[in-house]
Amino acid sequence: MADEHSIPETRVLAIASHVAHGYVGNTMATFIMQALGCEVSAINTVHYSNHTAYKQVKGRKTTADEILELYDGLKQSYLNNFDVLLSGYMPSAEAVQAVGKIGRDLRFNASGRPGSFFWALDPVMGDQGRCYVPENEIPEYKALLREADLILPNQFEAELLSSTKIKNIPTLATAIETLHRTYQIPHIIITSLRLSPVDGTITPDAETNPTHLTIIGSTARTDHSPRLFRVDVPALPLFFSGTGDMFAALTVARLREASARANLLNTASWRSPDEVGAGDLPLAQAVERVLESMQAVLKKTMRAYEKEMETLEAEDDRAGLSANSEGERDREVKRHLRRMRASEVRVVRNVGDLLLRETEDEREKFTATEVVVDASQSSTPL
Amino acid sequence: MADEHSIPETRVLAIASHVAHGYVGNTMATFIMQALGCEVSAINTVHYSNHTAYKQVKGRKTTADEILELYDGLKQSYLNNFDVLLSGYMPSAEAVQAVGKIGRDLRFNASGRPGSFFWALDPVMGDQGRCYVPENEIPEYKALLREADLILPNQFEAELLSSTKIKNIPTLATAIETLHRTYQIPHIIITSLRLSPVDGTITPDAETNPTHLTIIGSTARTDHSPRLFRVDVPALPLFFSGTGDMFAALTVARLREASARANLLNTASWRSPDEVGAGDLPLAQAVERVLESMQAVLKKTMRAYEKEMETLEAEDDRAGLSANSEGERDREVKRHLRRMRASEVRVVRNVGDLLLRETEDEREKFTATEVVVDASQSSTPL
Repeated sequence: MADEHSIPETRVLAIASHVAHGYVGNTMATFIMQALGCEVSAINTVHYSNHTAYKQVKGRKTTADEILELYDGLKQSYLNNFDVLLSGYMPSAEAVQAVGKIGRDLRFNASGRPGSFFWALDPVMGDQGRCYVPENEIPEYKALLREADLILPNQFEAELLSSTKIKNIPTLATAIETLHRTYQIPHIIITSLRLSPVDGTITPDAETNPTHLTIIGSTARTDHSPRLFRVDVPALPLFFSGTGDMFAALTVARLREASARANLLNTASWRSPDEVGAGDLPLAQAVERVLESMQAVLKKTMRAYEKEMETLEAEDDRAGLSANSEGERDREVKRHLRRMRASEVRVVRNVGDLLLRETEDEREKFTATEVVVDASQSSTPL
Repeated sequence: MADEHSIPETRVLAIASHVAHGYVGNTMATFIMQALGCEVSAINTVHYSNHTAYKQVKGRKTTADEILELYDGLKQSYLNNFDVLLSGYMPSAEAVQAVGKIGRDLRFNASGRPGSFFWALDPVMGDQGRCYVPENEIPEYKALLREADLILPNQFEAELLSSTKIKNIPTLATAIETLHRTYQIPHIIITSLRLSPVDGTITPDAETNPTHLTIIGSTARTDHSPRLFRVDVPALPLFFSGTGDMFAALTVARLREASARANLLNTASWRSPDEVGAGDLPLAQAVERVLESMQAVLKKTMRAYEKEMETLEAEDDRAGLSANSEGERDREVKRHLRRMRASEVRVVRNVGDLLLRETEDEREKFTATEVVVDASQSSTPL
């Protein structure tokens, strides 16, 4: 019986948010991982109508007790032998603690079988200098870091977790090394960095229009020293929600695939031998493939968005002649909602791009390159 | 930009149960419809760890208020312009009422645009003579039937809704005609009928081992008379959970595809002109394709199940030599849980069979044939 998938059979427990409409959190991650052939058990940390960038949302949060109860339900029926835990957005410090309990239980069950359990932890806390979880979640996340095999913070989250201000590549390297050494996290990816093309400094300023985004990753050597690689991708002039969840979900599948190819699935944390160079790491290979999928899907989303905006403008022009049955304020709210809807990532009808199936379209390819750090520029921790 | 899907873009609101592990309710239906290219917004009516045939389950039911709140959240942001509502399991009479409100609101929004909204209603109430929802749901379901474009009851549910005892093809035809006429339901499919190969009588008795299962469908003519067709599929010697949800989800996608091909998407209820014969109905064409997918996936599931059972027996034999650290009762519970797990439908890694993609495997094909009823055998209503 032929199997259409290049990714080995993988049982994932995905703990993150659920929205009825659109693609963020588990609604994004579950479909992506299933499309790539993973068996996904989802525990949803919120049940919302839509994501919060719409600026209006209904629904409820899952309590920490409810999260634990669902896990207990799996456990009592021996359904908790997961290969991977992917954890994302948690609505409370108690929920982070609950997920910590679950992760430790899975880790305990896997003891004696190196590589049989892998925790990909996306420490969703904020972005662009703004924290969007309760402050008391931050120490709870720090308490989890030692359990994680891979973390995927953005720049803001990496700064919070490493207590290092990231200004340029050397300070970024310091932040990553701090995370490798302090918490012994084997794999780290920092997503969506904006590096100045002039002097390589990093700006967290969303106002600037970067031409490229940079992803920096590292798999620690056994002495916890980093092996840094970078991949640059052209920036798209549109903000999409859920891309962090998309990145994490694709990374789980592609890292498992690359680690299987490197015969690492029976090695603790799927960690490459020390002699493997940064650019040859399975993590680097995974990121290359993840970005190829993402860029293809996001470009298609952007084209569809632009088409929708043309329609919207034409409608606005017509409405402008007949108005004012509704106020300008109402019209602005409606326009915002329409823009949000139009920028939902088009994953469902672009599975070929997720699978990197051969098609007539030429997808952009990306290459990870080793990062060599000039230590003299490295700064002291915050 | 090439689209890999044969099914037109379709926005579905799916209201049914959610399980963390396994494939039933929305956990089944959402993935299936997404795999076939539909945009699915899911409102989950329960949040359980696993399906109830495991005989132990944790989690909670969604209240009717929570269901309505999620829909209100979609509505306030203009995210409720669904093409299709697929409703399945509801845990309470109040939840059925809530879904009724939602369905009526969607119907109202679509008024003046025939075919722009289609309600596929799976009246999940029971099976094999056993009701597994509160008794007071039955009248609530009956109150919804007039709103539905398609219903997919099993034999037990069809008997409840039509107040007709189904014993053979003529009484089945009576039940379907009653549903067409009394509730003006355009499309009806009755799934998983067990017909005696000897005399064509229908037995609801699960104890017998039928060689075939029969699916009977009908699209009413404008005078509400039925156009009956049947499709027979070889019965598989294993009980799978979630096949009703799988059938319903595949039917939504395939009926939309076949109706688009027949240029019916702007016709109320996608109903074929009266001159179209039973075997040529889009509904019949859809069922043929649905069964081709289902039989292929279920056969693969059964093969995987059998392999797992061989492993289990070998383990039991070894355990038998060393036992009795645990009692026979505990062992039997564990065996049951293992059988349940092994019989979860293998949808995720068999998307090619869902899409009916050309592969090296030869899939069984099925053909719908018109049913001609001998009216003399028809019985009176219960």
